[in-house]
Amino acid sequence: MENFTFFNPTKIVFGKDVISKIGEEVSKVAGKVLVLYGRGSIKANGVYEAVKRSLESNGISSVELGGVKPNPVLSKVKEAITIARSENVEAIVAIGGGSVIDTAKAVAAGYYYEGDIWDAFCGPCKIEKALAIFTVLTISATSSEMNNGAVITNEEKNMKVSFFSEHTYPKASFIDPEVQFTLPKIQVAYGAVDMISHICELYFNGVHNTEVQDYIAEGLIKTIMRNTAIILNNPSNYEARAQFIWAGTLSLNGINAAGRGLGDWSTHKIGHAISALYDIPHGETLAIVMPAWMRYCMKVDLPKFARFGREIFKINAPTEEEIAIKGILALKDWFESIGVKTSLIDVGIRLDEISKIASNPGITYPLGALKSLGREDVENILHLTNY
Amino acid sequence: MENFTFFNPTKIVFGKDVISKIGEEVSKVAGKVLVLYGRGSIKANGVYEAVKRSLESNGISSVELGGVKPNPVLSKVKEAITIARSENVEAIVAIGGGSVIDTAKAVAAGYYYEGDIWDAFCGPCKIEKALAIFTVLTISATSSEMNNGAVITNEEKNMKVSFFSEHTYPKASFIDPEVQFTLPKIQVAYGAVDMISHICELYFNGVHNTEVQDYIAEGLIKTIMRNTAIILNNPSNYEARAQFIWAGTLSLNGINAAGRGLGDWSTHKIGHAISALYDIPHGETLAIVMPAWMRYCMKVDLPKFARFGREIFKINAPTEEEIAIKGILALKDWFESIGVKTSLIDVGIRLDEISKIASNPGITYPLGALKSLGREDVENILHLTNY
Repeated sequence: MENFTFFNPTKIVFGKDVISKIGEEVSKVAGKVLVLYGRGSIKANGVYEAVKRSLESNGISSVELGGVKPNPVLSKVKEAITIARSENVEAIVAIGGGSVIDTAKAVAAGYYYEGDIWDAFCGPCKIEKALAIFTVLTISATSSEMNNGAVITNEEKNMKVSFFSEHTYPKASFIDPEVQFTLPKIQVAYGAVDMISHICELYFNGVHNTEVQDYIAEGLIKTIMRNTAIILNNPSNYEARAQFIWAGTLSLNGINAAGRGLGDWSTHKIGHAISALYDIPHGETLAIVMPAWMRYCMKVDLPKFARFGREIFKINAPTEEEIAIKGILALKDWFESIGVKTSLIDVGIRLDEISKIASNPGITYPLGALKSLGREDVENILHLTNY
Repeated sequence: MENFTFFNPTKIVFGKDVISKIGEEVSKVAGKVLVLYGRGSIKANGVYEAVKRSLESNGISSVELGGVKPNPVLSKVKEAITIARSENVEAIVAIGGGSVIDTAKAVAAGYYYEGDIWDAFCGPCKIEKALAIFTVLTISATSSEMNNGAVITNEEKNMKVSFFSEHTYPKASFIDPEVQFTLPKIQVAYGAVDMISHICELYFNGVHNTEVQDYIAEGLIKTIMRNTAIILNNPSNYEARAQFIWAGTLSLNGINAAGRGLGDWSTHKIGHAISALYDIPHGETLAIVMPAWMRYCMKVDLPKFARFGREIFKINAPTEEEIAIKGILALKDWFESIGVKTSLIDVGIRLDEISKIASNPGITYPLGALKSLGREDVENILHLTNY
């Protein structure tokens, strides 16, 4: 096991009807908030009203900004910072999934940052202070509701980068599984891919002696897979939603990471390069890249990839290599089975664009922890997605 | 899954040579501390020196109090509160296991409590403030290094009670597995029993739809068991220690509990009654009571007890009941195999004392969540320990 520091002060309030409690929690630190949200579905499903009612009944005033898009962009962050400053808000309330919550983190940090906030996201973290952040989770995928990371796209530079700060853990996140009953099924599927890929970026990083971490990782993946299938059949199954959502939050809240050292993150970096260039959902980019990355790198740690095949898909075969490859193909098949594409060709990206993806400035070479990848390796992986 | 709030702000600093970092962390909140410890083994193994050096090099002065005993007592808590107040300390540094850390929590809370601190532990929590607590873990067992609970014995009243407060989470805990290389083997065994019993108090509480929680619980138990065996053979195996210790911390830090509702805690309550009356180690009381409690209650939730037998001991048998009972007996055998006694007779408690244990005022009837127990049930369970 590697040395580690684990710290996660986010309070999770989980279950039926918990959104009504947000006002009381916010009132401990703020009298005026900026409410951030996405494309307005929260106004159709009652979540927006529930949040507003709880804030108002606790004497909290608010300004709001909607229109945060998937793969959230820097211009929106700057627009929100301007409003937050001019309105003197004391906290951010994010209603949404990873895109809205990540935007909230960037706004909370940017509120106090004097220079161009983009500079704070590049290189060593320069954030020393942030507004308090509260979230109401409406799409499970990124664990952003219980970690300190955010991914923002600079649309002028075609770059998607992540930042982390000890000041950007949400203070509290309110998670009512019923809120997600009406999500489009494809969002559930993308969420499942995102969760599994987060777990695997850490599970397959080449570090050994991680027994308890591996049990946790495998338990999370099995829970996510079994309940995704149930949800796609019956979107209103509360228990399946609750298991799926809580496993999603645990996927990248630090518990699976503690003691593993750094994750690999090649799949994410390549996926980010794809969605910086093409408007392809984050979850789909991961489903495209991850199985190809696994096949390309599996020989570096065959016992671990074989363990994955055995534990997750109950695969048995004469050799470790056969178990490993069958496990990876089973994962690719599973992604297809839930409606997510797994090859560049299927999402309309031609072979002659592969070198452009591999050259995206969002990828810094050498890439990866399990196996150190150069640009040619990344091109090979992108070609492999089509097979 | 039940509604839940998860909150755990303790920072864990884990790994080789991490104790040297404590001074820097303490210096953020305190210039003078009370150092609490147990029976002085920390002066033989270098831990005391390492802590003092780190505190001093960060300009932190300290007073100290040793002599905290297993099953820590109220009189020691009061003695420490008096010193902490007269010396105007700003934080408590606990070097030890659950007994020392629990004492530290009681002292940290008692520092600000105006009445008799025992009153604060009985009934609804009356603690509104506490000194900052830092811990250096030297015995793994209770997870007290990463939770907000403490168990204190009132030796005048022969009562052992637990209390919890949102103010008594340690601010940071420093866990170096090498520090535990020199522990007596029986302490490792008691620690393993304590961890497993904490997990099982929640695992067997009768609440269903806890898939991800069950995977985590079973992964923790398997990790603890496998690595206990390795440590008892080779006390200096770093990786086994690290796995054992981290699994121990996760056993009762809230992750296994979230979504399960209340635990059962009958085993602990009965165990506390035994050690309030007789000087028997906490871990041993649990190893005596738990298998008997499981046998007595298993029919209330046979599928769960059978799952336990299958998942933990790979037991196969024609019926769920047979798998369940074989799993329970395998657990009892496993406790014996690591040197811990599992019957009242073996620890010298006669049958005619059973009614005294069941009448201890530390047990409030009805007892338990899986099955509601009366005094006669508890007497039956205590008799069962001998079979």
